[in-house]
Amino acid sequence: MNNQLSTRNLLGIKDLNEKDIQLIFETADNFKEVINRPIKKVPSLRDVTVANVFFENSTRTRLSFELAQKRLSADVINFSASSSSVSKGETLVDTVKNILAMKVDMIVMRHPYPGAGVFLSRHIHANIINAGDGANEHPTQALLDAFSIRERLGDVSGKKVVIVGDILHSRVALSNILCLQKLGAEVMVCGPTTLIPRYMEDLGVLVEHNLRKALEWCDIANMLRIQLERQDIKYFPSLREYTMMYGLNRALLDSLDKTITIMHPGPINRGVEITSDVADSEHSIILEQVENGVAIRMAVMYLLAQKH
Amino acid sequence: MNNQLSTRNLLGIKDLNEKDIQLIFETADNFKEVINRPIKKVPSLRDVTVANVFFENSTRTRLSFELAQKRLSADVINFSASSSSVSKGETLVDTVKNILAMKVDMIVMRHPYPGAGVFLSRHIHANIINAGDGANEHPTQALLDAFSIRERLGDVSGKKVVIVGDILHSRVALSNILCLQKLGAEVMVCGPTTLIPRYMEDLGVLVEHNLRKALEWCDIANMLRIQLERQDIKYFPSLREYTMMYGLNRALLDSLDKTITIMHPGPINRGVEITSDVADSEHSIILEQVENGVAIRMAVMYLLAQKH
Amino acid sequence: MNNQLSTRNLLGIKDLNEKDIQLIFETADNFKEVINRPIKKVPSLRDVTVANVFFENSTRTRLSFELAQKRLSADVINFSASSSSVSKGETLVDTVKNILAMKVDMIVMRHPYPGAGVFLSRHIHANIINAGDGANEHPTQALLDAFSIRERLGDVSGKKVVIVGDILHSRVALSNILCLQKLGAEVMVCGPTTLIPRYMEDLGVLVEHNLRKALEWCDIANMLRIQLERQDIKYFPSLREYTMMYGLNRALLDSLDKTITIMHPGPINRGVEITSDVADSEHSIILEQVENGVAIRMAVMYLLAQKH
Repeated sequence: MNNQLSTRNLLGIKDLNEKDIQLIFETADNFKEVINRPIKKVPSLRDVTVANVFFENSTRTRLSFELAQKRLSADVINFSASSSSVSKGETLVDTVKNILAMKVDMIVMRHPYPGAGVFLSRHIHANIINAGDGANEHPTQALLDAFSIRERLGDVSGKKVVIVGDILHSRVALSNILCLQKLGAEVMVCGPTTLIPRYMEDLGVLVEHNLRKALEWCDIANMLRIQLERQDIKYFPSLREYTMMYGLNRALLDSLDKTITIMHPGPINRGVEITSDVADSEHSIILEQVENGVAIRMAVMYLLAQKH
Repeated sequence: MNNQLSTRNLLGIKDLNEKDIQLIFETADNFKEVINRPIKKVPSLRDVTVANVFFENSTRTRLSFELAQKRLSADVINFSASSSSVSKGETLVDTVKNILAMKVDMIVMRHPYPGAGVFLSRHIHANIINAGDGANEHPTQALLDAFSIRERLGDVSGKKVVIVGDILHSRVALSNILCLQKLGAEVMVCGPTTLIPRYMEDLGVLVEHNLRKALEWCDIANMLRIQLERQDIKYFPSLREYTMMYGLNRALLDSLDKTITIMHPGPINRGVEITSDVADSEHSIILEQVENGVAIRMAVMYLLAQKH
Repeated sequence: MNNQLSTRNLLGIKDLNEKDIQLIFETADNFKEVINRPIKKVPSLRDVTVANVFFENSTRTRLSFELAQKRLSADVINFSASSSSVSKGETLVDTVKNILAMKVDMIVMRHPYPGAGVFLSRHIHANIINAGDGANEHPTQALLDAFSIRERLGDVSGKKVVIVGDILHSRVALSNILCLQKLGAEVMVCGPTTLIPRYMEDLGVLVEHNLRKALEWCDIANMLRIQLERQDIKYFPSLREYTMMYGLNRALLDSLDKTITIMHPGPINRGVEITSDVADSEHSIILEQVENGVAIRMAVMYLLAQKH
């Protein structure tokens, strides 16, 4: 019986085959039981030191990884690359080699540049987990999303998932598409032309610009957040019109003949891409996604540590 | 025998009755013994995860809570809401619900707005401890202050306590007044008219503008710190005159016919609200306050965890 | 048999005699074995609480101390003095007394002012380790450097070491000189006149302005980093000319008749003070320095804790 991953790093969903993903899910099932027990810890990674190396701020992802590490009894060090570290002129490889020289076994890295994890994996021996490299991959997010669909709907295979919003600048869209497809789901993206990259159709993804039509097609809608804090993104044609055309609200959902499961990677802009009544409804699995994030990350770290 | 608190959250001293406070003190007595042993840890909260959620910087309070959590063997995650998190537009409830979805049992929260903890307690199930909500309540500080008086003078009941300085902008004055009154002490506030809120007399608190008269009346003087770093507060009529009228120095104390116990919530502005010879004298219990802070916070968390 | 240090604080190399240094090295030999085992932890400091008090940012040194503390099973609290803390007007002694009142046993302190650790040691009882006080001492760095020389070359005594670069503003030069001399090495400094302090010759250190001559003399070259981020330092006469005159490259090394061991305290400016082929060559012990840093700091904390 195969209970090992085919890879020693998790740089992207592209590293995983379907068996790997199923193994991660089954392992996460067990860990989800663990974190819902009164005693939430296991000693599995007692002798493993993990460094969380964040070249970009991401409180939410870092907390989820940190909790997963604590539940596994790992030793944890946090390295946040402030502007000062960058201005000291050290290269990425030097920074990480230094951390490794301190006998670190696993690196969880968030970096603004696509491919940073891949680059690193060619130079160092520790297990590397990509916790987001720009708009490229964010594999643990995609895994927890698919795991949450499986949990709610029984299976991912055969399901129709639409990802709505700013696909172009999203950290999570690409990994989600790849993961859902590997598990046999059909994927559509929906948003204004300006926010959908041209290569979507090459990936075998349906493209739809009309939200109602997308909802009529799908079983699950994953509403991406509008990154209000990013000044460099122009939302077409204005935020208010975006909300009118691509925001999800109760009236729209009620006008459909069926029930749709609602997802959101967080943090939510209530009243922008999703209204509160939808976000907090029984068909929303937004908080399940957060909870499952810890179980999925425990599973990934547990399985990679066996390949050290 | 009652060994449970009457509340599952500590949002303010107003949540506690006198029995609760005595139970916290007796529990803190035990923990104070623990932290003065060579082996300072107990396994009491081994299966409890606590999130320290600070929407405002407060190194001192956070360190005290963190040490208390470590002595109790709790798992700890720290969430500091930087300006970036706020600019991402997430609501307070969403932020905390996300943290809770990661299976956190207890929240210690510092927030700039009065009532933030109360608001939160209506929406979430974890135990909440208010670590300061603006100029409203800071209950663990009041408890450690009263505990330190009890330790030095044997009892709080019947004692006369004057709180000197900027009552209006203080994070600790209101909780102190409520706590001391519940324990049977008499409370006076002393400072310039501009820094004393009008509702003091409604609370049954004596108001005095002359420091000498206040000192002649009291057994204990709690000297609040002047918040030099806050540009929005005008100290009447100038800092130098403030020090002349409301600063505590050795000559003034020596001119009294009695001994007064001196307190200060820290950090001290030496030479402003208090001179070094007074702050470091044998009648000062300033460092005892800091030490007792860890024991009191251990007691509060230990007792609340039993009400989860 | 003497297995105790002669000091209870490590404020500088000047606190240590040669026996102390040898004891630290032998203890570090043992800990280096520990951190290269699958199980990297020992329970030695299980009942010791260490505060890392950093009045200046130093990710690299802090991480190394933190890992050493975790390997020793100590309880750790981190205090970073931001500008806000300083603006609150508290004195250094008050800040640290407050931390100690929380029952902290050991303080690791980085401070921008020379002598900050010495000053502190006169006022408080905890074991103090100086993790850098301005351009004065940084003793654990000097110990790990000398330990790395001993590891590579068998012994420090009789070796010739040149320290190249900006001696004047260096945090590590003085401690290195004192440590190497106590262990019987000969020390030379090399750099432009403007970056070499006048008192070097009083310390019995050779001064050389020509890099080739320095390299012809030495067994080991310790290349200091150019602090590009410091606007207040003028590098003579320009960075490019500095690199031409004092940068170490392969051609220069190959033109010598012998092999030189290369050191660098990190972080490296590749192509400035050292080229990549030299930094990554087999004669470079730069990453060994980082690894040995954890073992040396474990040894220092382990030995000081016995003198509490």
